[in-house]
Amino acid sequence: MMFSTSADATISAHGESGLIQCIENWLGPVNPPSPHGIGDDCALIIDPASRPSLLTTDSLSLGRHFHLWTPPEKAGAKLIKRNLSDIAAMGGQPGPAVLALLCGPDLCTDWLKAFFDGIRNTCLAYELPLVGGDITQTDNGQFSAVLTLTGQAEKPLLRKTAAAGDALFVTGSLGGSILGKHLDFIPRIKEGQWLAGRSDCSALIDLTDGLAKDLPAIIPEGSVAALQLDRIPLSQAARKLSEETGKTALEHACTDGEDYELLFAVNQKTAVNDFAEDWLSRFPDLTLSCLGHIQLSDGKSGIIDALTGDALPWLDGYEHFSNQ
Amino acid sequence: MMFSTSADATISAHGESGLIQCIENWLGPVNPPSPHGIGDDCALIIDPASRPSLLTTDSLSLGRHFHLWTPPEKAGAKLIKRNLSDIAAMGGQPGPAVLALLCGPDLCTDWLKAFFDGIRNTCLAYELPLVGGDITQTDNGQFSAVLTLTGQAEKPLLRKTAAAGDALFVTGSLGGSILGKHLDFIPRIKEGQWLAGRSDCSALIDLTDGLAKDLPAIIPEGSVAALQLDRIPLSQAARKLSEETGKTALEHACTDGEDYELLFAVNQKTAVNDFAEDWLSRFPDLTLSCLGHIQLSDGKSGIIDALTGDALPWLDGYEHFSNQ
Repeated sequence: MMFSTSADATISAHGESGLIQCIENWLGPVNPPSPHGIGDDCALIIDPASRPSLLTTDSLSLGRHFHLWTPPEKAGAKLIKRNLSDIAAMGGQPGPAVLALLCGPDLCTDWLKAFFDGIRNTCLAYELPLVGGDITQTDNGQFSAVLTLTGQAEKPLLRKTAAAGDALFVTGSLGGSILGKHLDFIPRIKEGQWLAGRSDCSALIDLTDGLAKDLPAIIPEGSVAALQLDRIPLSQAARKLSEETGKTALEHACTDGEDYELLFAVNQKTAVNDFAEDWLSRFPDLTLSCLGHIQLSDGKSGIIDALTGDALPWLDGYEHFSNQ
Repeated sequence: MMFSTSADATISAHGESGLIQCIENWLGPVNPPSPHGIGDDCALIIDPASRPSLLTTDSLSLGRHFHLWTPPEKAGAKLIKRNLSDIAAMGGQPGPAVLALLCGPDLCTDWLKAFFDGIRNTCLAYELPLVGGDITQTDNGQFSAVLTLTGQAEKPLLRKTAAAGDALFVTGSLGGSILGKHLDFIPRIKEGQWLAGRSDCSALIDLTDGLAKDLPAIIPEGSVAALQLDRIPLSQAARKLSEETGKTALEHACTDGEDYELLFAVNQKTAVNDFAEDWLSRFPDLTLSCLGHIQLSDGKSGIIDALTGDALPWLDGYEHFSNQ
């Protein structure tokens, strides 16, 4: 039960300071002692080196990113992992995080505790300190959480640095995330760091809105992505969803959001097969697919079918705030 | 008009990428070029020195921190200033920030633009880069924003470091913020930095939930704050509100939230008069009041009237999520 009309079962029975005390307890060792964690106006972060810092923020909202029937532990874990995926997409190492909650006073304490179980366990797994936050009361029945995550990257991998001739790779398989992976995905932190440590990875992004929408972000101006459509890795979930929706599994793989896989470019100095071999020896359990190449544009834009030269029929992934 | 049923007037007419483009335009020079601002998975922050970093997050919610009739510029400015006040309360220098928006698709674009006018102008005034963020769609009629602000502090001032014998000071005047100051306050950044540069300031906090609730946070265990109640600086607004509510102006000054003034302790090695003179020469336009002293407790707790030894009758400031 997420919301309740029985006040004693809700966070309103605790008051704010009691609620913060609960959260400190729920977080356990993930929340360092003040001033490095909850308890002062700001969290004090000592940067051991003076490497470039990363800063990212991502939200989790009831009705959008999870539902009343979602296990709260998985919702809490998802909030952390969404942000971790952004750090992975820079090839970074995650660091201290802060959390803002916006929730109705009828939120059940037990539900919130379980939500923090998911947060704590995920933070522990990634050795991530959660160093502070904010709680704001909204109307009954509402719940949103915003995590801001810092990180460090010796050599951060950016989006806009690929070139014509580079090969395009994607990890894992794509599509149908709504059937479960949107909760159970693994942020590709180790893989992102490994890519950042190589000199041949020229651009990196994580797939959150779907291949068709996210891929153009790493294609330089004047170029297109020429994809061999039969190499796009279709997930089991994409095939299953396809039976229900009447869309092809390929369309699901190209347009469904929340894959949280890495999409990246590798420059020509490394042969595709050599790169794939290196990958296999380092990450034998995570499929890698070469989707095609970046090539100079002849007027086409975005993504084309390498066989026919035609533009991909599905140009957009998930579009927020669209009334079309 | 904040919300509209006419889709063309709302953010849903833009789609997410269009909306981000709008925001980049609205932010102007406050948003650095990618990868140091909006445009990649994370914002890349180069820390020029390796001084301790600060990280804080604070929300702004429709119906809680502002209302439909609040000028949107002031709402945007308030979001930034709330966070700045936390950096001020550590004696820090603000740095890059990220912003998460949670809003209904019926939010009017013109309203949001004006909201960002307030954000931009405030960021410019404090030389604050806004380096990234997130937008999440919620139900119609809702609007919340969460800002996470980084900062640097050579010698951050904490809460728990005061001692018995220290004098207690507060800037400005207190109470009745709801009549206007909750929007028009000035975060005490310069003052906080000046305090952090002295060796005699032993603890610092900003007043957000009211003197009665915030003061105990800087009183060490086994001590009380003995206040001379006639020295608590009553604002004009506290006096005015008192006429409407029937409470005394003093009660308003002690229990109203959102003063955003600095409350701090100064150790005994500096005489109260000497400190006040130093303050006057540095900040001639901002009133400083010595409220009393921290003294060893004889069983009392929290805050007492220095004349009578009685506990203050109003023990709590604004309490979120309380059903009492």
